[in-house]
Amino acid sequence: MAQSSSKKQRTHPHYELLYHPGTPGRGEFIRLAFEAAGVAYTDLANEQRDGYSTVRDICMNKGIESADGNPPVFSPPALRVPGAEPNSRALVIAQTPNILWYLGEKLGLAPEDEAGKYYVQQLALTSLDLNNEVHDTHHPIAVAKYYEEQRDEALKKAEDVRENRLPKFFSYFDRVRQHNEKESNGQGKYLVGSSLTYADTTIWQVLDGLFFAFPKEMEARKKEFPDLLGKFYGSVKEEKGLKDYLSSERRLKYSMGVFRYYSELDRQ
Amino acid sequence: MAQSSSKKQRTHPHYELLYHPGTPGRGEFIRLAFEAAGVAYTDLANEQRDGYSTVRDICMNKGIESADGNPPVFSPPALRVPGAEPNSRALVIAQTPNILWYLGEKLGLAPEDEAGKYYVQQLALTSLDLNNEVHDTHHPIAVAKYYEEQRDEALKKAEDVRENRLPKFFSYFDRVRQHNEKESNGQGKYLVGSSLTYADTTIWQVLDGLFFAFPKEMEARKKEFPDLLGKFYGSVKEEKGLKDYLSSERRLKYSMGVFRYYSELDRQ
Repeated sequence: MAQSSSKKQRTHPHYELLYHPGTPGRGEFIRLAFEAAGVAYTDLANEQRDGYSTVRDICMNKGIESADGNPPVFSPPALRVPGAEPNSRALVIAQTPNILWYLGEKLGLAPEDEAGKYYVQQLALTSLDLNNEVHDTHHPIAVAKYYEEQRDEALKKAEDVRENRLPKFFSYFDRVRQHNEKESNGQGKYLVGSSLTYADTTIWQVLDGLFFAFPKEMEARKKEFPDLLGKFYGSVKEEKGLKDYLSSERRLKYSMGVFRYYSELDRQ
Repeated sequence: MAQSSSKKQRTHPHYELLYHPGTPGRGEFIRLAFEAAGVAYTDLANEQRDGYSTVRDICMNKGIESADGNPPVFSPPALRVPGAEPNSRALVIAQTPNILWYLGEKLGLAPEDEAGKYYVQQLALTSLDLNNEVHDTHHPIAVAKYYEEQRDEALKKAEDVRENRLPKFFSYFDRVRQHNEKESNGQGKYLVGSSLTYADTTIWQVLDGLFFAFPKEMEARKKEFPDLLGKFYGSVKEEKGLKDYLSSERRLKYSMGVFRYYSELDRQ
């Protein structure tokens, strides 16, 4: 069971994260939302004996429904909220941005107004698009094959992502931040409004993974985008809830997931 | 102005689709939702003189806001609903699945219950993931370079998508359909519930594009997945609203967008 503020915990159902064990991956976007909100959740595959068999049954089964009667899920992550439905079947939500939309409302990580809700979701979707492009730097041809089998193509893909795609995305998110700074007469601390949303935690996680996977490239880009990659990145890291989590053992290390370090793919 | 049932038209604001002209692309998922619902919309770049300059201003500008004061959009498509906000700034929603979530509620193309809403969105997100993978069959290395510059890599990528990814996605959506067939004691006509949702129109559009881009591959897969690629695909095409649209001049032809026909990328 992850730590949480006991105050908020009582008002929430028992949330379960269903994801692969041992890697941050796409599950990390969900973990960051819970940790930032200080709301308890169980990361089944990492915290429960045999938890991963539940993940497999719900998210990776090849039948037409899981043991609890829910329809099939294409792949993890999923969020399970036992008994949330009237007929007492567990509510299962799959697809990262979909889970974030749900949690944004429940955990207070999205604005109250309609336009704000769609805007935060838009920014999360765009961050997750970048996440996918970064994944493809080491797997441009086939997700089921080894990196070593597609290394030549990965060198080309990584070069394009570093030289063309990263600056395009960074420029975009920096302008989003500037727009909010202007609108709120504030310090541009967040992407939207005056408090943390899941748009902040989601782009933050992608930036953090990029610092791991492309350290030289990111050091150089930091000079070009000091507000986004310096100030914004640094201040989200210090947010209540996130700071403790990021220095805890619950924060899983990058290894062979979406974000991987291959020196040959970094700026030379 | 697209055709619409005048009955519904009166109860809706004046929706505007902002997308590139001349190609179905990601804009088509939005068009299909409007056409299936019989609700009017203006496809700015295709229907208004200088409409594309508005698309560029809202969706492709390099500043921190568009002329109407909205924050920047990463790329088209976007939906604009003039005056939907209290302060009379137009509501602008970007990112295809985000627009579909919004329209699903407004156009009656999503279930009323919470679990159903998230499930339909999950299926649309998974369909759009497949759409992205299909795009990458001809652009595996760099979106800004010509196909001819990445043809060798495209041959490998297309082979993997055809042999491994398509059957994985088709099996998934066929099981989704079977689950609904079982739940509703019905004929498995729709993916969710007993009426058309944007989950149906979204996967339909991807399948239709695949029939164009990979005719030999799809002909062979149709024998393997006759219900999904035959019955389901065929019956969505006959839906009220869609049937007329698909045979009209408003339905743009595939050319050099997401779905392209290169005989060398198809099954040999």
